Amino acid sequence: MKLGSCYYPEHWPEEIWSEDATRMVEMGLSQVRIGEFAWSRIEPEPGQFDWAWLDRAIGILGDAGLEIILGTPTATPPKWLVDSMPDMVAIDADGKPRGFGSRRHYCFSHQGYRTECKRIVTALAQRYGNHPAIAAWQTDNEYGCHDTVVSYSQAAAQGFRNWLAAKYENVNALNKAWGNVFWSMEYRDFAEIDPPNLTVTEPNPVHVLDYRRFASDEVVTFNKLQADIIRAHAPGRDVVHNYMGFYTEFDHHKVGQDLDVASWDSYPLGFLEQFWFSDAEKLRYARQGHPDIAAFHHDLYRGCTGGRWSVMEQQPGPVNWARYNPAPLPGMVRLWTLEAMAHGAELVSYFRWRQAPFAQEQMHAGLLRPDNMEDQGAKEARQVATEIPAVAEPGKAAPTVALLFSYEAAWLFETQPQGQSFQYLQLVFSMYSALRQLGLNVDIVSPNADLADHQMVVAPSLPIIGAGVLKKLQQLSIPVLIGPRSGSKTAHFSIPDNLAPGELQDLIPLKVTRVESLRPGFVERGEDFEIARWIEHVDTRLSAEEALNDGRGVVFVSENMRYLAGWADDVLLKRMFRRMAEEAKLAVIELPADLRLRRLGETCFAFNYGTEAINLTDLMPDAGQNHYVIGDATIAAAGVSAWTRS
Amino acid sequence: MKLGSCYYPEHWPEEIWSEDATRMVEMGLSQVRIGEFAWSRIEPEPGQFDWAWLDRAIGILGDAGLEIILGTPTATPPKWLVDSMPDMVAIDADGKPRGFGSRRHYCFSHQGYRTECKRIVTALAQRYGNHPAIAAWQTDNEYGCHDTVVSYSQAAAQGFRNWLAAKYENVNALNKAWGNVFWSMEYRDFAEIDPPNLTVTEPNPVHVLDYRRFASDEVVTFNKLQADIIRAHAPGRDVVHNYMGFYTEFDHHKVGQDLDVASWDSYPLGFLEQFWFSDAEKLRYARQGHPDIAAFHHDLYRGCTGGRWSVMEQQPGPVNWARYNPAPLPGMVRLWTLEAMAHGAELVSYFRWRQAPFAQEQMHAGLLRPDNMEDQGAKEARQVATEIPAVAEPGKAAPTVALLFSYEAAWLFETQPQGQSFQYLQLVFSMYSALRQLGLNVDIVSPNADLADHQMVVAPSLPIIGAGVLKKLQQLSIPVLIGPRSGSKTAHFSIPDNLAPGELQDLIPLKVTRVESLRPGFVERGEDFEIARWIEHVDTRLSAEEALNDGRGVVFVSENMRYLAGWADDVLLKRMFRRMAEEAKLAVIELPADLRLRRLGETCFAFNYGTEAINLTDLMPDAGQNHYVIGDATIAAAGVSAWTRS
Amino acid sequence: MKLGSCYYPEHWPEEIWSEDATRMVEMGLSQVRIGEFAWSRIEPEPGQFDWAWLDRAIGILGDAGLEIILGTPTATPPKWLVDSMPDMVAIDADGKPRGFGSRRHYCFSHQGYRTECKRIVTALAQRYGNHPAIAAWQTDNEYGCHDTVVSYSQAAAQGFRNWLAAKYENVNALNKAWGNVFWSMEYRDFAEIDPPNLTVTEPNPVHVLDYRRFASDEVVTFNKLQADIIRAHAPGRDVVHNYMGFYTEFDHHKVGQDLDVASWDSYPLGFLEQFWFSDAEKLRYARQGHPDIAAFHHDLYRGCTGGRWSVMEQQPGPVNWARYNPAPLPGMVRLWTLEAMAHGAELVSYFRWRQAPFAQEQMHAGLLRPDNMEDQGAKEARQVATEIPAVAEPGKAAPTVALLFSYEAAWLFETQPQGQSFQYLQLVFSMYSALRQLGLNVDIVSPNADLADHQMVVAPSLPIIGAGVLKKLQQLSIPVLIGPRSGSKTAHFSIPDNLAPGELQDLIPLKVTRVESLRPGFVERGEDFEIARWIEHVDTRLSAEEALNDGRGVVFVSENMRYLAGWADDVLLKRMFRRMAEEAKLAVIELPADLRLRRLGETCFAFNYGTEAINLTDLMPDAGQNHYVIGDATIAAAGVSAWTRS
Repeated sequence: MKLGSCYYPEHWPEEIWSEDATRMVEMGLSQVRIGEFAWSRIEPEPGQFDWAWLDRAIGILGDAGLEIILGTPTATPPKWLVDSMPDMVAIDADGKPRGFGSRRHYCFSHQGYRTECKRIVTALAQRYGNHPAIAAWQTDNEYGCHDTVVSYSQAAAQGFRNWLAAKYENVNALNKAWGNVFWSMEYRDFAEIDPPNLTVTEPNPVHVLDYRRFASDEVVTFNKLQADIIRAHAPGRDVVHNYMGFYTEFDHHKVGQDLDVASWDSYPLGFLEQFWFSDAEKLRYARQGHPDIAAFHHDLYRGCTGGRWSVMEQQPGPVNWARYNPAPLPGMVRLWTLEAMAHGAELVSYFRWRQAPFAQEQMHAGLLRPDNMEDQGAKEARQVATEIPAVAEPGKAAPTVALLFSYEAAWLFETQPQGQSFQYLQLVFSMYSALRQLGLNVDIVSPNADLADHQMVVAPSLPIIGAGVLKKLQQLSIPVLIGPRSGSKTAHFSIPDNLAPGELQDLIPLKVTRVESLRPGFVERGEDFEIARWIEHVDTRLSAEEALNDGRGVVFVSENMRYLAGWADDVLLKRMFRRMAEEAKLAVIELPADLRLRRLGETCFAFNYGTEAINLTDLMPDAGQNHYVIGDATIAAAGVSAWTRS
Repeated sequence: MKLGSCYYPEHWPEEIWSEDATRMVEMGLSQVRIGEFAWSRIEPEPGQFDWAWLDRAIGILGDAGLEIILGTPTATPPKWLVDSMPDMVAIDADGKPRGFGSRRHYCFSHQGYRTECKRIVTALAQRYGNHPAIAAWQTDNEYGCHDTVVSYSQAAAQGFRNWLAAKYENVNALNKAWGNVFWSMEYRDFAEIDPPNLTVTEPNPVHVLDYRRFASDEVVTFNKLQADIIRAHAPGRDVVHNYMGFYTEFDHHKVGQDLDVASWDSYPLGFLEQFWFSDAEKLRYARQGHPDIAAFHHDLYRGCTGGRWSVMEQQPGPVNWARYNPAPLPGMVRLWTLEAMAHGAELVSYFRWRQAPFAQEQMHAGLLRPDNMEDQGAKEARQVATEIPAVAEPGKAAPTVALLFSYEAAWLFETQPQGQSFQYLQLVFSMYSALRQLGLNVDIVSPNADLADHQMVVAPSLPIIGAGVLKKLQQLSIPVLIGPRSGSKTAHFSIPDNLAPGELQDLIPLKVTRVESLRPGFVERGEDFEIARWIEHVDTRLSAEEALNDGRGVVFVSENMRYLAGWADDVLLKRMFRRMAEEAKLAVIELPADLRLRRLGETCFAFNYGTEAINLTDLMPDAGQNHYVIGDATIAAAGVSAWTRS
Repeated sequence: MKLGSCYYPEHWPEEIWSEDATRMVEMGLSQVRIGEFAWSRIEPEPGQFDWAWLDRAIGILGDAGLEIILGTPTATPPKWLVDSMPDMVAIDADGKPRGFGSRRHYCFSHQGYRTECKRIVTALAQRYGNHPAIAAWQTDNEYGCHDTVVSYSQAAAQGFRNWLAAKYENVNALNKAWGNVFWSMEYRDFAEIDPPNLTVTEPNPVHVLDYRRFASDEVVTFNKLQADIIRAHAPGRDVVHNYMGFYTEFDHHKVGQDLDVASWDSYPLGFLEQFWFSDAEKLRYARQGHPDIAAFHHDLYRGCTGGRWSVMEQQPGPVNWARYNPAPLPGMVRLWTLEAMAHGAELVSYFRWRQAPFAQEQMHAGLLRPDNMEDQGAKEARQVATEIPAVAEPGKAAPTVALLFSYEAAWLFETQPQGQSFQYLQLVFSMYSALRQLGLNVDIVSPNADLADHQMVVAPSLPIIGAGVLKKLQQLSIPVLIGPRSGSKTAHFSIPDNLAPGELQDLIPLKVTRVESLRPGFVERGEDFEIARWIEHVDTRLSAEEALNDGRGVVFVSENMRYLAGWADDVLLKRMFRRMAEEAKLAVIELPADLRLRRLGETCFAFNYGTEAINLTDLMPDAGQNHYVIGDATIAAAGVSAWTRS
């Protein structure tokens, strides 16, 4: 695994570029990402390019031995460009234009802007496509950041109409598929259809879902436009995009088909603070991040390409954008880096090389402080750079659970939660975390992925079952869990004729006859577990493997298939997963709350996300016999150990 | 009492209409509501009517023996109509148009839309006015749903100016009545007056109140336009509208003057979840609804016409629109139906016949599931259909408390709450509930209603006292309670010259010299009760019937008149109401929290809203001697008993 | 000190003006403010002035012996004026115009409106400038009330561009100062720059800060325009403006330079309810206000001019605008009046003379009730009018702590809180309160103020250090506290080259190398204190005066300079301030929670903000020896004592 950093030569006096490059190499970094926000410097006036500074920057960095990842600058079109076509900005759900003055001020559907992107990416790719120092290209930056995927512009409205016309061919087919007879919503022509915002009450959910599908497809198209240009001019270089955390607005699997490497930006402390974690978790892990946040994304994005992935931006210290921004516990930057390695990353690149003293991110730490001194992150990067070589390259993959993840499912449940505590991403994360607490390796993959190399399958929820997915599941003989609300919708967001789980009834003979969403505090109890948020009434001839105290079943088994009829707590999830793992002959271990394991080939890593030391011998009596390549049997707070079996 | 259901033939294949009709009759239903959202099917192209399908649907349903309630489809104008006059939609308080894509996308004040409504209603009434199967007509659907009464469109602005000109005749009269000298808000012409939105800080409260009065009058006019057409073409048929729950945006008493039957849509679980109830109540009654929610509306809407009322939509299972949507406890659909009967309903109609698998309400249960099997609601409808005949038709009315309810009061207190916890509807409900907890029958009536047949009067608050109301109250000799803030405003939203309670000082000699709103947790204490939210300082020669620990009076009595000078808790309300009932020679009984009684003629019903059985003999030692027409002395959870005295 | 009231002759029948004037004088009032909202009566039609009524009102009030403060009516332009130039209203951050119908519906930057203001102020000043009854002029009313300082109108945008051009001279200088290379935000011309709203994510913080500076300057200019006209026509009269409470949107120090007297509007109960106080404080002080609210503003606004200040509007009873509006405890109106006196006010003027029964403020108490009877406030005003003469005029100032307050700092921290609980005003208030709890006199002054007469300096935070401030601090030998985040930014909102505290490192040798914001509940503990919200990592050779349990220092001392590296609780603040006071030879006393002292010359006042009596001898054993000019050694709830040492 390589280390790198994100660097902005245009932010610093040219005099220190060379010193910066030297220091990077000396620190153990071998890659550097540049350029992704530099449009106003590359093209300061319309059509007038200034390549000189960038030539020099690339030259200096390359000469120092660094491999460069060059970003296309399309996330930050300059003011002159916006002024030349003011309707290129996205329009928010309230109808307001999203203006210049920060970044991502463009609508994916604007054809004029696409032309401009083609122009600037072509110019860059022509100039630097064959430059020996450039190892990879990053397209744009963090697609969708700041809620920028869905736009309600005229360009988007027109794009949507075209997309619908291509999909449904005639408007009566659309009316029928959407059920527009309901509330007299029938259209006489595709031209009558508007985006689903500013309606009096909620729009037809399939109208919203199709708009989300369309908006996602626009990102795919936008990215492919750039990827194709780069591939044409930069043969042999990787095309990369840096995804974000806990972000589902577009289909990362589809975008991933046009990438060589899926990368992501890992900010565990900010994500803990900004997402659904409980107050207790936010306090307990304030300086470490929840133990499964980074790993979840590693395992998710590895599944977005053929398996090649990296961390393009690694939090090196406090950030500036969360409600509260504490500092990582000393050791966490190293821990995060090694956790990425344990999951198979090609690169961990710290964001950013040096903290910028100006503009929006001036309170975002870097490896270096604004006064050019090394910050805590740099110290830990140095250490980890020396530790990486000790870990052997992975041989064959370790036994692994496949967790099926669907972006479309996320859109569907956002469109129709039916109970405001039903959040798809949180449901998936809860199952992922329960698997991790049992020490299992997990691959998070598309429902369309090949599952031949897995030992066990968990589908937290698959509301729409594609034909291929059904067939694939039918062919499996390994343990499979089907979660609540699976098969509850057709492709056109209707209830299937045979009710949920729809076609999955071919796999497991049961029918969901009624569903309930439950307010916080209202739970259904089993002997030692609780079902909260969501519970289903099931009609089946199967007897229940797990039941409520009143006898209603919540887990049903038919051969290798299990169905879970509600939102389960950790107790129930872990018991169910232990049973499945046993059936799959996967070894499990009950880990303490703050500890996580990851197997990479023959190497096993252990990560302590707590503030107290953990002794592995308490957990594995023979831990003393391990061959430790990092650390030993006692793992300090924020510490890491890695070993192979002797 | 009849049973019915809401049915949408246009949603289903024509082949099953006949089977549906037969099943309805077999289930015990005798009425069916249709048509209220079918405009796009009735008039698929401008001016081109397709009556054929509707003729057939009406024929099939009628032939099966069902009485039809035909709705006018004006709540869902089709897209071609909106596109032909885009300014027909309402404008929200932020100035945004409320667009097509759901329902109720019209402004009540738009003259062009009114013309269209006249056209479509006339066409319908001409075609079906004398159809023998049609027993009643429903105007539009749920006026005001999704916050659609108040619009800030140009049409509304112009309508408001005309309304003001008619009311005040000259602008100086308006300036004086409104007190526009304050902050230089004086107008020189009615044309200068805008709707009271988008002001820098709060507008003049009388400006807002007049706008609310205007907006309510627009609903009255809109409804009357339809009612008049229907009456002209459909002699002998009832004109009905389906009101909503906990909804006060327009004056239902005024609209009711143009109806034969006031109907409402009863969703007890959704209303519990969405309104002001405490978390403890929301958990305790999650699957039953608060014991007074349905009854409150029954008693309210009975007072909106000459006494004829019904439930047009009865929740039959989980709904789709509340934050959380649990299922009713088994038995509740039957209980709700019988509670409506006990309050004198003509009809309980379940919404809807069959759950639609598509569009916005696909997660809203029906009597039938989407797979055409009977759901729990159907089973309970079947049972209750067999029980209804056992209850004798009511003879004379049981002794009853009149609770005075004013829509204008609701608008006034929303405009000027003075403390954010002062909510008029909640104040009224708290008094209603206290009366119900004492086993009293209640009529909720307009302050203008005749009170000759009542034994006791409770006016939770009458901020503006009309001349007729004062005179009527003066003539009463039965116990009367006047609640806080009564008489605190003139008709033009000013403080009366003699302070609150204004002219009521003729009835009870006291003056409110100062008022205070209190934050949650800040209460004034009496020996066993608390005053929270609102407390008044009273200057009077009367001695207090109830006082705070510091000696300040909170209840004052003068002959048959009582004044309550604050927001009282259940302890104080019930003690006061017990005293009044004693004076009125009304029998009271202290009911357990989950039990409610209702007397209908000679029959007494008891409803158990709890999750445990209740034994009536614990409450009434001679309960064993009752003649039970439904159930017996032990009432199961969600159970009902009804008896006459032997 | 004088007493007065705010009076609106235009609201009342002319017949009672004379009686009102007589009653004021009889009650002990000697000043009266009028006219500030009367534009529509002064100029009912464009260009047609009606002076007659105002001549008579001024005549009657003056003849009664009252000194008049005449307000310019520019806060309430009439409808005809707004209709003549609709773009004169401010535009909110969402792009919506802020319309007519309340008050303050203008944009400070609109040149047309400025011309209108010049016209009306000139007309008033020409007519009444030399009127003998007029003692002072109030400009406009409560600049900024209802969030009206910052506007996003075209007029403001253009004004901003001009302001930037004047400040930066060329756009490249601006690009460099702002760091616009970040995210390609570079401009080619000042004309390209928009206001910093409606951006996709947060704009450049310096863009926001400059916009705030610009908006504040617009208020200064707007006020000066009026002040200059008044001074030209009304020689010898004071120019006054009435500031608000807890309000920092414009630089009151700068506006104060164009005033003779800084006045403010004191509503302690509303401020308690609306601002950051804890629920416990809001309950404890619901009818008294927090003991430091009024005093804080007295001490703040005294520092906005050369020391002359007053209370233009004093809460006399319940108000109408807070979430909850309880009544002051009996005695509080007197207490507030005497607290103002103790801080050196020239005038306390009650708002308002008589409660208006109509329009927006009808629920706002006055000295008289709407029925013309005296309310509680009048009774207390009568009492205090008799007590004032007993207090000797102050001789020399008492020893005093200087608390440095910067409006720019408030804008800066709002722009970049970095942790959402970091609120500058609350930080300042917490230090002010800790000083008051030790019985110290405090002057709240601009960082630019002369500190020669002070004994001790507290700078809660000075994020940007001006050159003059640094030099002044260097020359001080008295104890100085520098709070967290001081010196953390350059004038262009960047991090200083040498990190925080920037140039202050010349005063105290330490460097802040990392900062953390902490979520509620996450605290760092010392032996008996807690650091919450904000903690800094400090690199220094100094040993710590106070440290966390883990050894990290939080208070550092170097000669007379102290640095506080976090957000401290009362325990730590008071211990630090006691040490500093000891070094400064200032006497301190540990006051009970509800008691506050203030020294005015030789007189010491004590104020009991609690609901129980306090005996001074419990606190000062020799309190019996005091010479009491008001009260005695036992201070009742809401009571006041004042004494000189015998």
